[in-house]
Amino acid sequence: MASSVYIANGRLVRPGAGDTLTPGGVLVEGDRITVVALTPDEQASARARAGDLVDAAGAIVMPGLVNAHYHSYSTLLKGTQNGLPLEPWALYTVAYGRALGDEAIRLAVLLGAAEMLRNGVTGCVDHFPHTRWVESALAAHEASGMRVAFAPFMHDVLDHEFLALALPPAIRTALDASPRTDAADAERMYRDLARRWHGRAGRITLALGPNAFQRCSPRLVATWRRLGDELGLPVHTHLVETRAQAARGRAVWSGGTVAEMARRGLLNDRLSLAHGIWLEPDEHALLARHGVTIVHNPASNLMLGSGRLALPSLIGRGVPLALGTDSSNSGGRHSLFEIMRLALMLSRPETSDSRAWPAASRVFEMATTGGGRALGLSGELGSIEPGRRADLVLLDPRTAALAGAPVTVPHLVQHASAESVTAVMVNGAWALRDGRILAFDERAVIARVLDVTTELLARARADVELAAAAAPYFLAGHTPGV
Amino acid sequence: MASSVYIANGRLVRPGAGDTLTPGGVLVEGDRITVVALTPDEQASARARAGDLVDAAGAIVMPGLVNAHYHSYSTLLKGTQNGLPLEPWALYTVAYGRALGDEAIRLAVLLGAAEMLRNGVTGCVDHFPHTRWVESALAAHEASGMRVAFAPFMHDVLDHEFLALALPPAIRTALDASPRTDAADAERMYRDLARRWHGRAGRITLALGPNAFQRCSPRLVATWRRLGDELGLPVHTHLVETRAQAARGRAVWSGGTVAEMARRGLLNDRLSLAHGIWLEPDEHALLARHGVTIVHNPASNLMLGSGRLALPSLIGRGVPLALGTDSSNSGGRHSLFEIMRLALMLSRPETSDSRAWPAASRVFEMATTGGGRALGLSGELGSIEPGRRADLVLLDPRTAALAGAPVTVPHLVQHASAESVTAVMVNGAWALRDGRILAFDERAVIARVLDVTTELLARARADVELAAAAAPYFLAGHTPGV
Repeated sequence: MASSVYIANGRLVRPGAGDTLTPGGVLVEGDRITVVALTPDEQASARARAGDLVDAAGAIVMPGLVNAHYHSYSTLLKGTQNGLPLEPWALYTVAYGRALGDEAIRLAVLLGAAEMLRNGVTGCVDHFPHTRWVESALAAHEASGMRVAFAPFMHDVLDHEFLALALPPAIRTALDASPRTDAADAERMYRDLARRWHGRAGRITLALGPNAFQRCSPRLVATWRRLGDELGLPVHTHLVETRAQAARGRAVWSGGTVAEMARRGLLNDRLSLAHGIWLEPDEHALLARHGVTIVHNPASNLMLGSGRLALPSLIGRGVPLALGTDSSNSGGRHSLFEIMRLALMLSRPETSDSRAWPAASRVFEMATTGGGRALGLSGELGSIEPGRRADLVLLDPRTAALAGAPVTVPHLVQHASAESVTAVMVNGAWALRDGRILAFDERAVIARVLDVTTELLARARADVELAAAAAPYFLAGHTPGV
Repeated sequence: MASSVYIANGRLVRPGAGDTLTPGGVLVEGDRITVVALTPDEQASARARAGDLVDAAGAIVMPGLVNAHYHSYSTLLKGTQNGLPLEPWALYTVAYGRALGDEAIRLAVLLGAAEMLRNGVTGCVDHFPHTRWVESALAAHEASGMRVAFAPFMHDVLDHEFLALALPPAIRTALDASPRTDAADAERMYRDLARRWHGRAGRITLALGPNAFQRCSPRLVATWRRLGDELGLPVHTHLVETRAQAARGRAVWSGGTVAEMARRGLLNDRLSLAHGIWLEPDEHALLARHGVTIVHNPASNLMLGSGRLALPSLIGRGVPLALGTDSSNSGGRHSLFEIMRLALMLSRPETSDSRAWPAASRVFEMATTGGGRALGLSGELGSIEPGRRADLVLLDPRTAALAGAPVTVPHLVQHASAESVTAVMVNGAWALRDGRILAFDERAVIARVLDVTTELLARARADVELAAAAAPYFLAGHTPGV
């Protein structure tokens, strides 16, 4: 018989019910929420039916947050180069990435999972560049207790080629030698991974992870489209993250990058696009029409100087939206609480009409149901309703950061953090309780991380020197955001 | 004999020594750091001299962070109105503020102290509107274990008067009846508080707290100048927070608000100014020349739609800088870690030259020595050096959020949070250890807060209704930030 647990005496975050929290309980049977018990009768009946009883004792019960754009490998690279715009910065993260190995990848995935679980994040889209290590990454994701859409990269056009950068011959030759995806290899990898991993543990989704439209040749784009349609998998990729990318897209494709993607048949509701800062209003409308999700990464967009997303305009045009933290070595922390606050406030100074400011409830929806859509689980995640997957987070309102007036959704978005997270359930199983991660040995991971990272940084030295030599030429091609 | 403690085996944040942390120990005798022990000999000698030994066991030891613009009363008002620009928003916070009482103020101060201590904040500037409750607030600050510059308000010009807003007569009459400071009363209050509280427990500083230059009549400005000069106290006030304030200042004073403040003899190195978003470059230069500190409140500036500070320009012109969280019901969390990240990244998209991006070490200095200057303790706070006051924070690098590459200053600024704070010392005494606040009973405070806040919100209802009626007229006068 499947396990069942009744979480009693909570205060439920149910955005459909307004900003106020609802006193009640949640019955979880197997991997699903089966009853939301509000009346005394419903509560007594759910309690009687449950195998296990957890008294939430006034705790806030909210749907798990989803980090819809994330690169797991970067969790080992905290504090490395983070003072350059995207294109030159990317040279460094690629250089460090080459020094990765099996154990580093395993640790990176689990370390990121620990940080996310502690921050109430139950699911992520891991956009994964290092296809050599996909098995280690997937095994670690399975062990992490978290939900993941795993999206291994494909790309065969390099930035200096697309951006038509002027480079000294020696640097060009060195960069030209970077690994490129072979379309047939990619097809084999995705088919194999989909067969063996898709749906495993009820928590793993395989996704296609083209690096970006402009980083894929026509042949690779054809593979992307065919595999996506045939396998019906979610697709996750980067989109016009810098002004230079947008300008170049308009120069090479009539109407720009999104118009060309539409012509190639790539726009559909299985697609999620990270960044999209430099889209024009007609591109917003085109994406909305096809049900494509934009994943907003406000911290990363600022840290890399890329720009600020026009969030009110995207909301106004009905584009599906989600939130992401991006990399540890660009965006910083993997705290969706902090990212929700940024999304709530970042665009406010640009809009004279405060009625157009993104509402806290809308931002919360981006971090929950919006993220669920990016995970390929539209309608299955992100709210506390019977039939949904049981990805739940308990927060203690009796912590210094939250205590004050009775907690509402705006209060939660503005003040919550890891400090208040006491328990996390993913797919019906507890991943964290009483502040301790149950799914894996967090202490053992952390104890090993420093040694592995120190070796990795040392091993990357020659590649990092090449990055440093090439960076000024990429910097010259950078145009500031606004 | 004064107490002494040796904190052994730390990794010290000493920004003067570059971004890398320094292995070593810190000897604290009485309220001061007396030895920074780096060599084995220095460490053995400091250890031998200390009454008490604390093994930091590889923990990060950093100077305490200073929250240089903060309103303690607001910690009870989380989740209340936070979807309006400053001027209409202020009507609400003033309305709630009127319902405060002795116990509410005591709880508000301690609740804010708990949140700040947990976030590694050892000192704050409490800019305090409710002069009726100054004794309760000061007693609570003394009990909190934290360092404070307590700056009670004075003001006798209301916003609708300064901004020359068109208001219906009934609303104008109601607002006109708002309490205004009498200059003689203010003088008595400050002299009395300075005599009884200034320097108490080695942690309390009395400061003058004019609400804003434009909110003080010439008579009150004269009191401000005279008392400041005579008592030699720090002065803390708001400055050109919105575009409308800047425009009106330029309309009524030749050269604008700062030029007029200079003519009145108010600019000196005891003065700190919150916000200053809409200053012109020549005003930056004038403030730099007088050693005036600007306190940057990036979260509050965004949340209220006020605008974004031109931080690179202020850094370039040598204006002394500090960081603040402002109110719980505007800026949000009282986490200087989160605010440092915002300061690090917020201005990046505006600057094409990434060499001009604020460095992590500069942002860290704003939160430490910069804040110390705003507290009136220039040269006494904010770095780990012999002779400084012992305000120290220990962070565990073996936490999910910090673990990765060896911790450096940029790593700390981008990834640290309350999750890693294990101990906090203020003025040589432990205020928090092993995650528990020692200075006061945090649980008792939190247990009482919800009842008091619920009563307060109910009591404020009539005043909040007036705020809601007046807000649209204030909103009409709002011009967006950029």
